[in-house]
Amino acid sequence: MKIGIIGVGLIGGSFARDLKRVLPDAEIFGMDNNPDHLKTALELGIIDSAGKGSSLAEAEIVFLAIPVDAAVRELPSLLNTVGDETLVIDAGSTKSLICAVVSNHPKRRNFMACHPIAGTEFSGPRAALEGLYEGKTNIICEVEKTAFKLQEKALDLFSRIGMRIRYMNPEAHDKHIAYVSHLSHISSFMLGKTVIEKEKNERDIFDMAGSGFESTVRLAKSSPAMWTPIFEQNRENVLETLREYIQNLEAFRKKLADDDMEGIYREMEDTNKIREILKGIPLNKKEA
Amino acid sequence: MKIGIIGVGLIGGSFARDLKRVLPDAEIFGMDNNPDHLKTALELGIIDSAGKGSSLAEAEIVFLAIPVDAAVRELPSLLNTVGDETLVIDAGSTKSLICAVVSNHPKRRNFMACHPIAGTEFSGPRAALEGLYEGKTNIICEVEKTAFKLQEKALDLFSRIGMRIRYMNPEAHDKHIAYVSHLSHISSFMLGKTVIEKEKNERDIFDMAGSGFESTVRLAKSSPAMWTPIFEQNRENVLETLREYIQNLEAFRKKLADDDMEGIYREMEDTNKIREILKGIPLNKKEA
Repeated sequence: MKIGIIGVGLIGGSFARDLKRVLPDAEIFGMDNNPDHLKTALELGIIDSAGKGSSLAEAEIVFLAIPVDAAVRELPSLLNTVGDETLVIDAGSTKSLICAVVSNHPKRRNFMACHPIAGTEFSGPRAALEGLYEGKTNIICEVEKTAFKLQEKALDLFSRIGMRIRYMNPEAHDKHIAYVSHLSHISSFMLGKTVIEKEKNERDIFDMAGSGFESTVRLAKSSPAMWTPIFEQNRENVLETLREYIQNLEAFRKKLADDDMEGIYREMEDTNKIREILKGIPLNKKEA
Repeated sequence: MKIGIIGVGLIGGSFARDLKRVLPDAEIFGMDNNPDHLKTALELGIIDSAGKGSSLAEAEIVFLAIPVDAAVRELPSLLNTVGDETLVIDAGSTKSLICAVVSNHPKRRNFMACHPIAGTEFSGPRAALEGLYEGKTNIICEVEKTAFKLQEKALDLFSRIGMRIRYMNPEAHDKHIAYVSHLSHISSFMLGKTVIEKEKNERDIFDMAGSGFESTVRLAKSSPAMWTPIFEQNRENVLETLREYIQNLEAFRKKLADDDMEGIYREMEDTNKIREILKGIPLNKKEA
């Protein structure tokens, strides 16, 4: 079985590593517009060969793991190029636009729109981890638009890799993911920015930082090339979550300014229920 | 050697566990206004006995690990009660007020104002971890006000436990810690609140949360009883950090609303230097 990985970074590379484990006979070729990444992926044994345009027609499965602006641009012509029986899976963090650009494509039934909720703050093939997807949620959008046989093939693969499946429409996906993923990244980036700005004059400040700071600011290490197009494609939802987040921060600040310490206590106590909620989130052992 | 731990929760309990390791002959008594915590600490072997008022006069070292409002209230009378040679160490996350309330105390020289930068989002004696303080920074304020022999004793103990020492004045401590600790907690609490508010109607949302959300929201599990008085005592600094943080979030939101994606990219790229900065932060293996 020939499998193509387009984009051999953290997401594509980790998927390739899991494929090698569950399908030891698969022949995995990689494609990447960064020749260094392709070379590294070959050296690390993540892929077996570098693919050519003609490889796509022969592939049984193609996994598209590139930034969401590039994915939206490339997917229609990719579908033109692949074989009639090829399954094309994407892994983008936004789903409305990608589903829209192929909605009338003659090969729409070859495509399955996915968002595996997995990753780390690192990027590139060296960041690829075997087992990254184990126990993680994979959100599939508009499943009914994928050919039934290709659905079966994809679900069998996801099940072997150990992913949990959830079905959602693209609009609901984009709205909810803005809260539990996109907002976290912005809050983390802006926290990092606020502290770095202060640090310009006060270099000692980071010597005082503990694991709490490290944890809240971890996502500020993430790739701008990956995240800028995500925020662009999900702008309306992200603007709304940011409005609500800023409003909550303003309200907290006002309570503190007014010396309403009972109010401050209650805000935190109410939010403590996140403890119970978080117990339900599957975590990769390597990241926990 | 008799050692007293006042407050046998996460901070006091972890300190007791490290003491047992580096001073196996020490007799550790605990005091806590929560009888359940005292009972649990005894059962877990964190302390050897429950202390009485009279125990304090005989103690060589007393470690005060209670919420900062209680610490400010209790420290003067604690100093009245301890022996002439007793070393009293606190572990509060704010340092200005506690230093101020004992500045003219006849036993000021028995006291060392400390802030070990260590902890987790959990609390109580069951959260106490051996090795929590290993490799962590301990900030000592107004060291010159502690008797020289007691300084020596404290530094020897901290060195055996494996802590790095930094000296600072209380005002600088409170200003800087607002950025690298207090602000992180508020950003995390408000992130949790924003998502929980949305979740009222959309229970599915947490099924979509990954380890990135878990990481940024981890501190929202923290104890309101511990954090409310910290924010109260460090109000001016926390208000200032919140003002700057909200301003940065507003600016990011405006860039996104204006479709200034180059600006968004640059904001994230500039903040990526947090990668280098974080490499310098010592992390507890158990939390990393």
